[in-house]
Amino acid sequence: MKYNRTFNFSAGPAMMPEPVLEEIRDEVLNYRGSGMSVMEMSHRSKVYQQIIDEAEADLRDLMGIPDNYKVLFIQGGATMQFAAVPWNLMKNGKAVYVETGAWSKKAIEEARKYGEVIVAASSKDKNYSYIPDCSNLDIPDDADYVYICENETIHGTTWSKLPDTKGKILVSDQSSMFLSKPCNVSDYGLIYAGVQKNVGPAGMVVVIIREDLIREDLDPKMPIYMRYDTHSKNGSMYNTPNTWAIYCCGKVFKYLKSIGGLEAMHKRNIEKAQVIYDFLDSSKMFKGTVEKESRSLMNIPFVTGDADLDAEVVAATKAAGYDNLKGHKSVGGLRASVYNAMPKEGAEALVDFLKKFEAEHSK
Amino acid sequence: MKYNRTFNFSAGPAMMPEPVLEEIRDEVLNYRGSGMSVMEMSHRSKVYQQIIDEAEADLRDLMGIPDNYKVLFIQGGATMQFAAVPWNLMKNGKAVYVETGAWSKKAIEEARKYGEVIVAASSKDKNYSYIPDCSNLDIPDDADYVYICENETIHGTTWSKLPDTKGKILVSDQSSMFLSKPCNVSDYGLIYAGVQKNVGPAGMVVVIIREDLIREDLDPKMPIYMRYDTHSKNGSMYNTPNTWAIYCCGKVFKYLKSIGGLEAMHKRNIEKAQVIYDFLDSSKMFKGTVEKESRSLMNIPFVTGDADLDAEVVAATKAAGYDNLKGHKSVGGLRASVYNAMPKEGAEALVDFLKKFEAEHSK
Repeated sequence: MKYNRTFNFSAGPAMMPEPVLEEIRDEVLNYRGSGMSVMEMSHRSKVYQQIIDEAEADLRDLMGIPDNYKVLFIQGGATMQFAAVPWNLMKNGKAVYVETGAWSKKAIEEARKYGEVIVAASSKDKNYSYIPDCSNLDIPDDADYVYICENETIHGTTWSKLPDTKGKILVSDQSSMFLSKPCNVSDYGLIYAGVQKNVGPAGMVVVIIREDLIREDLDPKMPIYMRYDTHSKNGSMYNTPNTWAIYCCGKVFKYLKSIGGLEAMHKRNIEKAQVIYDFLDSSKMFKGTVEKESRSLMNIPFVTGDADLDAEVVAATKAAGYDNLKGHKSVGGLRASVYNAMPKEGAEALVDFLKKFEAEHSK
Repeated sequence: MKYNRTFNFSAGPAMMPEPVLEEIRDEVLNYRGSGMSVMEMSHRSKVYQQIIDEAEADLRDLMGIPDNYKVLFIQGGATMQFAAVPWNLMKNGKAVYVETGAWSKKAIEEARKYGEVIVAASSKDKNYSYIPDCSNLDIPDDADYVYICENETIHGTTWSKLPDTKGKILVSDQSSMFLSKPCNVSDYGLIYAGVQKNVGPAGMVVVIIREDLIREDLDPKMPIYMRYDTHSKNGSMYNTPNTWAIYCCGKVFKYLKSIGGLEAMHKRNIEKAQVIYDFLDSSKMFKGTVEKESRSLMNIPFVTGDADLDAEVVAATKAAGYDNLKGHKSVGGLRASVYNAMPKEGAEALVDFLKKFEAEHSK
């Protein structure tokens, strides 16, 4: 790659498109004749208002977000949304969660502070290596919503089919698959995503919420920053937002549009992941840890079955310039995160390396 | 200035030192041979750990932060701290606040959600144009802390002498004067500051808190993200922090050290503000709105006494390339924010312009 850049398989923050980084570099000291860096701009200025407006418009365009959904840019990560979602959405104090791994578990723990949480399905029995059948969940009539983590970063699973919520609102944490494929926003009441995996720099969550779910009759103890109505009424600028992240994400939205939108991105992601899955399915040394129908296109955990050998492979990949391939401790082995900005060449280079490693170690 | 940059008098986000921006630009595509942008780095990587560790060490060095204080990097702005401070620190459910303007008012409103707030002094009677005498405040024995906003961005006031807290913990919002002068951290129990005014890009607050004030026996309803112990136990990386802001702020900390630290910065800030205050005190057209002993070195509001003329001046400054000088609507007139990174030449150029304007309009 240009600039001596490495193939970075980090689970997040992660790679960004190189043309976007080049544009950012060129504008660091003076954004388009404004005389200042975007980092130095008043968020109340006309020039910045245009940046945030364009970012929102491009995202709406990219995802086809209906007019009755608000787009909010909020700080605090998915971690803060784990609390904000139940606190803002629970009217009856009850919600259904599907437990598919580490991140849905954290969301469940946090939601229990604000109401009753019913875990209607779980894949804990097989270390979260699959997405449970959710075609007929037991959902109480007074449940406020059904919650899923649509791609589990650590376990490498994704939902190929959304759960039947039986008319209840669907809430989805899309952090590690946001904008990786087309999304029918109308299927959801609320989508949120930390941008630091598949879009831009860390420190921002995008919340897409159906307008009628934004309430004002909330617990008076809720911090003003955690209320969706605060951000909604003020165009995400009740206080100073993460102006830099909005700017960078806006550029990534434009980049995605320029390459053909989410359909084109999805096609690339399928091809890219296929390179790795095809290898794993043919390898005698390595195997994927996830059931085939639940495999993520973004996070691909795999093991040799021997912890020492796993560690040896990780060390060898790092020495060869493929970064951040160590698997999360709860799964072990390796994990290749191949988000939108990872080129297919990165997947191919990694597979070539692993093939060579396997050949050399099977003699 | 180089790069056709303007003198930007924004109240925040605001100017950053040009040498820092140049370094950032040069590292956007590949940080020091790491093969990636800081925006793309796993926050769990060695290379990033070094960035955050150095940022904290340099800040500790710069401010002389004692070992029994923790430094936390948290998202959500001062707005989130308005809730986090009372929720984390109120053990007896009671605190004393001093009302000196818009930002302390917001902090008071938010704190009332979590306990009893006693406003022990206020400068509301004169539109917050001075800091009230706080040498003998009425502080209940069971008050958990005394809270001040140490520089009111909108009203342009600052504390030349800290309040006598009668042995209670002092909490200070230093957002708009952070690192503008030496600070004796031991005088405080907790200092916090949004970095987007005097340090780096928006989206991060620095919290400096005495260790013994970090509690675990907190309201079970408190979101995990709002608990100081969450951030403290995890080196500000319970979840992905605003990695970019930490990186940029770290560079500014190093820059401040390189120019002689906070003593040197304070001297520059005094000289710079003096240029403007001297003009205001000698002008027949313009006058400062703040009582002399409470004048901020950072935010300088001034008026002509005629709203139409004020508007004319604002328009003329903008046309001449001095940006963001319009005063906040609650004070009117103009406001020159001259944070650390505003060069003295900026203040001089503005004064030259205002002198010329006055001469031309007094004929």
